[in-house]
Amino acid sequence: MDKNVTFSKREIQEAHDRIKPFIHNTPILSSQAINRIAGCSLFFKCENFQKIGAFKMRGAANAISQLSNEGKKNGVVAHSSGNHAQAVAKAAQLANITAYLVMPNNAPKVKVEAVKEYGGQITFCEPNLKAREEGVKTIIQNTGAQLIHPFNDKDIILGQASVAKELLAETKQLDAIICPVGGGGLLSGTLLTTKHFAPSVDVYAGEPELAKDAFESVTSGRLIPAKNNYSIADGLLTSLGELNFQIIASGVKEILLVDEKEILKAMRLIWERMKIVVEPSCAVPLAAILRNPSLFKNKKVGVILTGGNVDLDVFFESYFNR
Amino acid sequence: MDKNVTFSKREIQEAHDRIKPFIHNTPILSSQAINRIAGCSLFFKCENFQKIGAFKMRGAANAISQLSNEGKKNGVVAHSSGNHAQAVAKAAQLANITAYLVMPNNAPKVKVEAVKEYGGQITFCEPNLKAREEGVKTIIQNTGAQLIHPFNDKDIILGQASVAKELLAETKQLDAIICPVGGGGLLSGTLLTTKHFAPSVDVYAGEPELAKDAFESVTSGRLIPAKNNYSIADGLLTSLGELNFQIIASGVKEILLVDEKEILKAMRLIWERMKIVVEPSCAVPLAAILRNPSLFKNKKVGVILTGGNVDLDVFFESYFNR
Repeated sequence: MDKNVTFSKREIQEAHDRIKPFIHNTPILSSQAINRIAGCSLFFKCENFQKIGAFKMRGAANAISQLSNEGKKNGVVAHSSGNHAQAVAKAAQLANITAYLVMPNNAPKVKVEAVKEYGGQITFCEPNLKAREEGVKTIIQNTGAQLIHPFNDKDIILGQASVAKELLAETKQLDAIICPVGGGGLLSGTLLTTKHFAPSVDVYAGEPELAKDAFESVTSGRLIPAKNNYSIADGLLTSLGELNFQIIASGVKEILLVDEKEILKAMRLIWERMKIVVEPSCAVPLAAILRNPSLFKNKKVGVILTGGNVDLDVFFESYFNR
Repeated sequence: MDKNVTFSKREIQEAHDRIKPFIHNTPILSSQAINRIAGCSLFFKCENFQKIGAFKMRGAANAISQLSNEGKKNGVVAHSSGNHAQAVAKAAQLANITAYLVMPNNAPKVKVEAVKEYGGQITFCEPNLKAREEGVKTIIQNTGAQLIHPFNDKDIILGQASVAKELLAETKQLDAIICPVGGGGLLSGTLLTTKHFAPSVDVYAGEPELAKDAFESVTSGRLIPAKNNYSIADGLLTSLGELNFQIIASGVKEILLVDEKEILKAMRLIWERMKIVVEPSCAVPLAAILRNPSLFKNKKVGVILTGGNVDLDVFFESYFNR
């Protein structure tokens, strides 16, 4: 890991204490039916019940809490098509500062509406990274707002580390924890937490075959950017961050790949058996467990369900029109 | 109430104790966003997380527990297109006796599969009440199985009474409880519980305008059968039972009607804001609250979410094929 970056046990603890007033300690659910199918005992940490419907609230709350009064003065800015935009808007609202969000003009309506509801000021742009980054640059020039990066940031990672911390506090003697990997904020935070609080716990990640940059980066030992721009797990298309990569490469047990049908099957299993709404990205870890039964047989495994912000338009339209 | 039928506080307590090993004490969830929209504090009792995905497990477990050894010998029989079939199959499996289920040949595949998984023996019939009752009659003649009625039965009502009992135990000082009404098993059980454990709590019911037999029966003072056979809230199409009607007519505060769009809107609100899967029937009480804001303004209201057994085929097909 980069010598300039240290993450101590105390920092993880302090970040968690700092954000507690702004987050839910989300419930951990189990399903006998899914355990039977998977051949192991699964403990689902339900971040779909988190504020704004995803774990991203934790990192955003921590990053904004860490700004100085001077830093807060001109507000914050982020670009995101999804949960990070909602998280920054909501965390800024709770901190009583302005949030500027650059969102692609094809972002799901429900996410745009949520950002508006949290008081976020939206600038729409073309749906590509260049336009998004330029949008942010313009806002910073005009307003002096502070950029909140979605994952390649120490305070974001420390915020996300609180998910595994709560999971470990409530579920004794886990053998492993598994989460999805996109930009790597959650996975790197999870690795920091297990390193300091439960070093015997193996940390796995699930990743879509169609977006396997983390798998390729860890396997090759160098940061390889994401190539594709489609998977049903649309939250996991991002390339790993540099900081995240350093932590992940030195700590993750294995990155397990899954195909699109496996993701959809796992998502449906969660909806049908657990009666909770999760987004496709969220189902990737369960898909990975079901694809690798021998790896998890009879083990106690914590599964981080990352979020529940599905576009329900398509569901409800079909239901009403059948 | 019929002088021959008495339901004591002790019977409610005993039924609850009897079924505890076979049911979950389901969680009670709240949503700040929905409270804001509704203008009151709502406490959702999540029976969608109950075994078999619906409160019906409670009544079936109690009714089967109350059978004598002689009564259990030849198994049990029920006709149902939905949750009652699953509940009887599962409760019979736990009691290690045979369950015969008469199901219409258009019953949702997911419910048929669930009944099979619980070891239920299915006989398919034409999708009408006459064919279902004849199917049951034939099975009784051939096997001597005991009929388990879905709602018009003292032991079923006592089992369903445990939902409100748990809700009252965990949520102090409720002003009101609201649940949907179909056959009336849950509503009559809820009324018995509040009568004995919290007489100051008003009990409301929500009912679809397209299936308003309970509303008409209570208003006119005589049991009026259901006329229509369609509402998106397909669990509420049944006519009230005689026993249920007696209890409901003398106790319910008001039956509130809602239209189909209101049901769908409330269902979507629950999925989107609470991230839980509920069936349309389940959303009727919230729809009723949203339609009658002045009735519930600033009150503490328990809302019974009855079940989460939605046919997800239509959802997932549309999601995958978009």
